[in-house]
Amino acid sequence: MSITPPSAAKTDAKKTDAAKTDERGASGIVHARLANGLEIVVIPDRRTPVVTHMVWYRNGSADDPFGKSGIAHFLEHLMFKGTHEHPQGEFSNLVAELGGQENAFTSYDYTAYFQRIGKEHLPTLMAFEADRMTNLVLSDEVVAPERDVVLEERRMRTENDPSAQLDEAVQAALFPHHPYGTPIIGWGHEIESLGREDALAYYHRFYTPENAVLIVAGDIDAETVVALAKETYGRIPARSDAPQRLRPREPEPRAHRLVSLADEKVEQPTHERVFLVPSYKTARPGEAETLEVLAHVLGGGPSSVLYDALVVDQKIAVNAGAYYMGSALDDTRLWIFATPAPGVELARLDAAIDRQLEAFVAAEVGADDLNRAKTRLVADAVYAQDNQVSLARWYGESLATGLSVEDVAAWPDRIDAVTAADLVAAARKWLDKRRAVTGFLLPKDTAELAA
Amino acid sequence: MSITPPSAAKTDAKKTDAAKTDERGASGIVHARLANGLEIVVIPDRRTPVVTHMVWYRNGSADDPFGKSGIAHFLEHLMFKGTHEHPQGEFSNLVAELGGQENAFTSYDYTAYFQRIGKEHLPTLMAFEADRMTNLVLSDEVVAPERDVVLEERRMRTENDPSAQLDEAVQAALFPHHPYGTPIIGWGHEIESLGREDALAYYHRFYTPENAVLIVAGDIDAETVVALAKETYGRIPARSDAPQRLRPREPEPRAHRLVSLADEKVEQPTHERVFLVPSYKTARPGEAETLEVLAHVLGGGPSSVLYDALVVDQKIAVNAGAYYMGSALDDTRLWIFATPAPGVELARLDAAIDRQLEAFVAAEVGADDLNRAKTRLVADAVYAQDNQVSLARWYGESLATGLSVEDVAAWPDRIDAVTAADLVAAARKWLDKRRAVTGFLLPKDTAELAA
Repeated sequence: MSITPPSAAKTDAKKTDAAKTDERGASGIVHARLANGLEIVVIPDRRTPVVTHMVWYRNGSADDPFGKSGIAHFLEHLMFKGTHEHPQGEFSNLVAELGGQENAFTSYDYTAYFQRIGKEHLPTLMAFEADRMTNLVLSDEVVAPERDVVLEERRMRTENDPSAQLDEAVQAALFPHHPYGTPIIGWGHEIESLGREDALAYYHRFYTPENAVLIVAGDIDAETVVALAKETYGRIPARSDAPQRLRPREPEPRAHRLVSLADEKVEQPTHERVFLVPSYKTARPGEAETLEVLAHVLGGGPSSVLYDALVVDQKIAVNAGAYYMGSALDDTRLWIFATPAPGVELARLDAAIDRQLEAFVAAEVGADDLNRAKTRLVADAVYAQDNQVSLARWYGESLATGLSVEDVAAWPDRIDAVTAADLVAAARKWLDKRRAVTGFLLPKDTAELAA
Repeated sequence: MSITPPSAAKTDAKKTDAAKTDERGASGIVHARLANGLEIVVIPDRRTPVVTHMVWYRNGSADDPFGKSGIAHFLEHLMFKGTHEHPQGEFSNLVAELGGQENAFTSYDYTAYFQRIGKEHLPTLMAFEADRMTNLVLSDEVVAPERDVVLEERRMRTENDPSAQLDEAVQAALFPHHPYGTPIIGWGHEIESLGREDALAYYHRFYTPENAVLIVAGDIDAETVVALAKETYGRIPARSDAPQRLRPREPEPRAHRLVSLADEKVEQPTHERVFLVPSYKTARPGEAETLEVLAHVLGGGPSSVLYDALVVDQKIAVNAGAYYMGSALDDTRLWIFATPAPGVELARLDAAIDRQLEAFVAAEVGADDLNRAKTRLVADAVYAQDNQVSLARWYGESLATGLSVEDVAAWPDRIDAVTAADLVAAARKWLDKRRAVTGFLLPKDTAELAA
């Protein structure tokens, strides 16, 4: 492991400037907070003279105001439209000229902006990024055409893609109450109504230092980063407390839902089943780690239970797997997915998955299987940390979804503590079919128009 | 018909006191508005010396603030907790002592309070009802125990009733975005968090004269009602414009959803299929009336298409029908439902319903069938109007869901204009399976655990 927990870790850094209250772990990761509320994580990585600079805002599509779905993602687009000081294009052109990379992404729980660049340019990046945290200029002339860009993005992604349409319908069925049921990009008819005033109101609500996490990874020391942050982000006055994220909790699901879509564009039928399960943030201690290992044992590659049964043994599928989306502020999803072998009906594959899950909770998980899964999960995480951007992203995502630097650092130990009995208990509790939505994607001319 | 449209009807009465701007139709129905915004409908009915007095507020469960589901219904309970002038119990005791009846109900789009009483007591009722429109007193001592009453009501209705649980899940699947997907009573975990401040904030937002419709039916003339209304409701100052109802529109559905629930308490399996369709408020002219006739032709009693095919002819069902819930502010539901004959699997019944709908859109509706359906619908409405409470309720519900007095009066003519071609076109457009959620209620020990 390249990360170990700080020896005297505190979860909540105090509201004084960071230089006085640094927390430094054995790995050298520093977690601090500016007086205006901006949280900072510095991750030393000295191999190349490059830095990764990220600002994470604790607002994503699940924080979109009622009836304004898509505004988080739309604002992410608009953040490239320039400020009083730096007109549209100047920031991106500069990054390109300096040989850097930039990107931005919106998810359910956060929106993030990042650049990767030679370390000598970090002060410039921070000045530009701090500038657009507070000085964005939006005119109707830029807002309306960009809304058309987003609508076109939505059309390209979903209107011509039955698989994307099914995914939207499956998520909507899994989360009828919680906003995870609304696509990140928003529903088309609501995007159409988003205007300049909506974007500005959203910007002023969420784009504040109190709501942001600055992550800097690379060949630079923490004192320098914190000093630079004070000179740039530190000049933005604290507005108030961090904005509240108001989200209803999904009620306990009681009835299985099957969502099926048949379309002439479908060439390969697919099967998915999604369960409503706790996230790292909402789970009881150890429960999310158990779900992580469970998904890996069930469907993490060719040696997994489902792959072995459905693809290798029964030969009714050409692929099968599982995935736990643990990083989420609220209750989240565990997916099982499979692609049928030619001529195999989805209903047959579905019944076979049922039988595998029943067999799983009736049997014991072997120590070898369990240890292999745990070792693989931790190893994958270690490999991911060998990439500066992945490592920075792991911290950013964790801090934006309510976890702490210490939670990230202690993750391998918590994975290691999962037992075989935990797996079976978790499968029995959480992989209950009443908690699930099953999705069938079918060719149009199929005889199998599921129920 | 006992109602005919006013000859010079205006949809929006002006904001001056009503006596000057009465609108009176041939039937004597008067539609007026007080200066403070209160809308009034007086429906003369001289047969007995009795009046029905109703106040309809244009807010229902679909207006519950995000994360506060159940507040509309909870406040309806709290409206019986007394005011400064009339402590808890006084109003209800008075109605009982005077030989009257009272009731209150909360729906998706409105909340209403009504009494039926000897006409000489109307002034007293109006004074009491106006008093609680603005002077409600809520202490923690009454709010907390009443919340327990509501939670118990929810437990009794749904926790022990798999059919109610399935209905909740079906509605949630049909409306993943729009609040019609949330039960009127609210989700249990959100009811638990409702407190005095929530109730007062909701009360102050919605319980205003601008947001209310007063309906008085019975043995009284309009001048007297309007004069009484001015003395009572008219003293409440106008607060502002009517509160806005902010509701997201449901996106176009693209994938069929099957919701299935198996429970050991289920003795009789049932089948339902619900389609997302326009309401009287959202439909294009004539479209809602077509859906009304369509539901009747398909499933309005023993001579309907579905009953005839499934129960009489194929004998695979013991009951079958259809229902259009046209009265709604937003896009709404058309139900098809069936109860299988003993030993018939729901999947078989489901496939038979598919075939009937396919046959329906491929054939023509006979003139006799159409005329019988239209005559029956209009006749049923006439019979309903023979009941003072039903008649008052029809006007209240219509005005609370965005329709006008004239819309109600012209309804029989619009039903009469529906053609056989309209029915087939509407079935093809709206009874598309992709717009539907199917619900299967099954016994626990069934072999048929649908998908």
